[in-house]
Amino acid sequence: MGQPISPGKFRRLQKLSDGKGQFRMLAIDQRGSMIKALSRAADRDPDDITYQDTAQVKRLITQILSPLSTATLIDPQYGYPYSIDVMARDTALLLSREETGYEKAGPGNRERRTILTKDWNIEKAARAGADAIKLLIYYRADTSAETSRYQQQICQDVGEQCLRHDLLFLLELVTYPFEAASDSAQFAREKPGLVVEMTVEFSKPHYHVDILKLQFPAELKYADRFADGAFDNRKREAVYGIAEVEQFCREVHQAAAVPWVILSAGVDIQEFLENIRLACGAGASGFLCGRAIWSTAIDHFPDLTKVERSLADESARNFRVCNDAAGTSLPWYSHPRFGSRDEIVLAQQSESWYRDFSAS
Amino acid sequence: MGQPISPGKFRRLQKLSDGKGQFRMLAIDQRGSMIKALSRAADRDPDDITYQDTAQVKRLITQILSPLSTATLIDPQYGYPYSIDVMARDTALLLSREETGYEKAGPGNRERRTILTKDWNIEKAARAGADAIKLLIYYRADTSAETSRYQQQICQDVGEQCLRHDLLFLLELVTYPFEAASDSAQFAREKPGLVVEMTVEFSKPHYHVDILKLQFPAELKYADRFADGAFDNRKREAVYGIAEVEQFCREVHQAAAVPWVILSAGVDIQEFLENIRLACGAGASGFLCGRAIWSTAIDHFPDLTKVERSLADESARNFRVCNDAAGTSLPWYSHPRFGSRDEIVLAQQSESWYRDFSAS
Repeated sequence: MGQPISPGKFRRLQKLSDGKGQFRMLAIDQRGSMIKALSRAADRDPDDITYQDTAQVKRLITQILSPLSTATLIDPQYGYPYSIDVMARDTALLLSREETGYEKAGPGNRERRTILTKDWNIEKAARAGADAIKLLIYYRADTSAETSRYQQQICQDVGEQCLRHDLLFLLELVTYPFEAASDSAQFAREKPGLVVEMTVEFSKPHYHVDILKLQFPAELKYADRFADGAFDNRKREAVYGIAEVEQFCREVHQAAAVPWVILSAGVDIQEFLENIRLACGAGASGFLCGRAIWSTAIDHFPDLTKVERSLADESARNFRVCNDAAGTSLPWYSHPRFGSRDEIVLAQQSESWYRDFSAS
Repeated sequence: MGQPISPGKFRRLQKLSDGKGQFRMLAIDQRGSMIKALSRAADRDPDDITYQDTAQVKRLITQILSPLSTATLIDPQYGYPYSIDVMARDTALLLSREETGYEKAGPGNRERRTILTKDWNIEKAARAGADAIKLLIYYRADTSAETSRYQQQICQDVGEQCLRHDLLFLLELVTYPFEAASDSAQFAREKPGLVVEMTVEFSKPHYHVDILKLQFPAELKYADRFADGAFDNRKREAVYGIAEVEQFCREVHQAAAVPWVILSAGVDIQEFLENIRLACGAGASGFLCGRAIWSTAIDHFPDLTKVERSLADESARNFRVCNDAAGTSLPWYSHPRFGSRDEIVLAQQSESWYRDFSAS
């Protein structure tokens, strides 16, 4: 039996998931990568992509795809003000806390620091109707003590603020190579250990994380079954077998002290479906996916009619196959943090709850 | 075109209503009247009805009927701690701000003052996941200046606090007779004017009300069509015709500067259905109903198996006929406060929304 959960966090977990406790979540909070994709599609300089271009595309994605999700993640800058009125009624709302991109730091500028969005905070997000806050933390356990402490500290701060408002804290952990290319055998070898290490670190209770949003703990393009170019027709070195990859997924699940979901990190839909199947087979409670679902639709920009049609057609189909692939995911309430639906204990459940329970 | 609405309030209006902008809401926040009903049913002294008796009955009602509602109103004392985990995922949450009952005041102790629940506030409700706050204000325009000011002031305070959190403020207005019995020709004559007067008062913008929960502005048992005992086999004097009653409803709609819903105030289901039809025909946006739907089920207390069966059977049927009767209600966004769905203007909709928007 797990630790008691506050009723406010319980209610919001119920809203982020479906009736079976599974998360089928949509991410539209991309900013830098979205503007790059729009500029490529329109053959324009990124500086020529206007605020309204980005806001309108995000609005279209929200309108067409949020009804398929249990929860949708948007950003407070381009997303919220122009998307909230088309967000599906029964879709929970996640708002992102960090700025797009990162700040380079440490020896040789090879470390990454998360930048929090200025003039934005958890209180504002609560008032705006957020059910959960998403924070992206770049992490490697082997960065300078300064960078590690910095990343750990902002995570702890956000966790404490979420706790004060009983908003869910969804922490996205992203590791990265120091020298190797992201798409390299070297990083493919390094990644499983890095993902497990950061999952261990941020599972510590003082971060107050409710849901971990994790990278797939391997690079499937470098796994024996797919190294022949299965996803992008490019052959690569096979650095592990699929049984090893399954083992990495189990290690992540062992390390995750709270329910976790798998992120898509810009891989295409076929690779992401494999990620979902493997992660959910090992204990993930669903996914939080963006580009793998809708990136081909925004390739039609600036033709918004075509964007819209592609979202309703191909992207919606992508979403449905992701939902199917995640059918076997572990309900959040069956994660060891809770045990089972019947074992959940609500904090301060008593006649004096309304008195004992403190305001933020 | 109406005044701009904050996106947080917009989102919560969307959650309180269905896809057509109609409110089909359930009230389970009765405390004093619930305990009385349980004691009558069990033939026990009200003091012998335990906290757990009341909490368990409320939990059953929430579990079985909340899925039929767009929003459910519970109280923070007996309701929330033992009901929140069985509240339907897609049902919005209203929490009540006031204590059950009222304090007698003024000349001859014939005036009523609302008592706010101590150690409970809007901040706590927001943290607990409330989408809206309900406050019940007893009112007559002809009370002593002291009582009027008192009632107006607590209403304004709650309105301002809701605004700071962008929670919806649902104000329930209940008028009452000074001397006459509630069930009397005298009060039946007085009621239409009293209901319109208080609707005018609390429609003033400084109260920041988002939804008015109003009494039916007449007593149908004293209307010509029903005075022969149509609802309870008791004949009464006919003090108005049905055309006059329809006119009272139109006057309420004219007076209500914000969307309004009709309350059931303990009348039985047949009378409430007539109330719904007449109110919704005049411009109400739905209903917020308690006892008319579930009172016959709790007559089976202390046999909880029978209570449960009756809730699933007769009460659910009552709810469905109420939903049908409210089918013609005015979508909230079509109320003159907004004009139409397409005319709604979100406040501070701009690139700098997340900066301009202030925390509570």
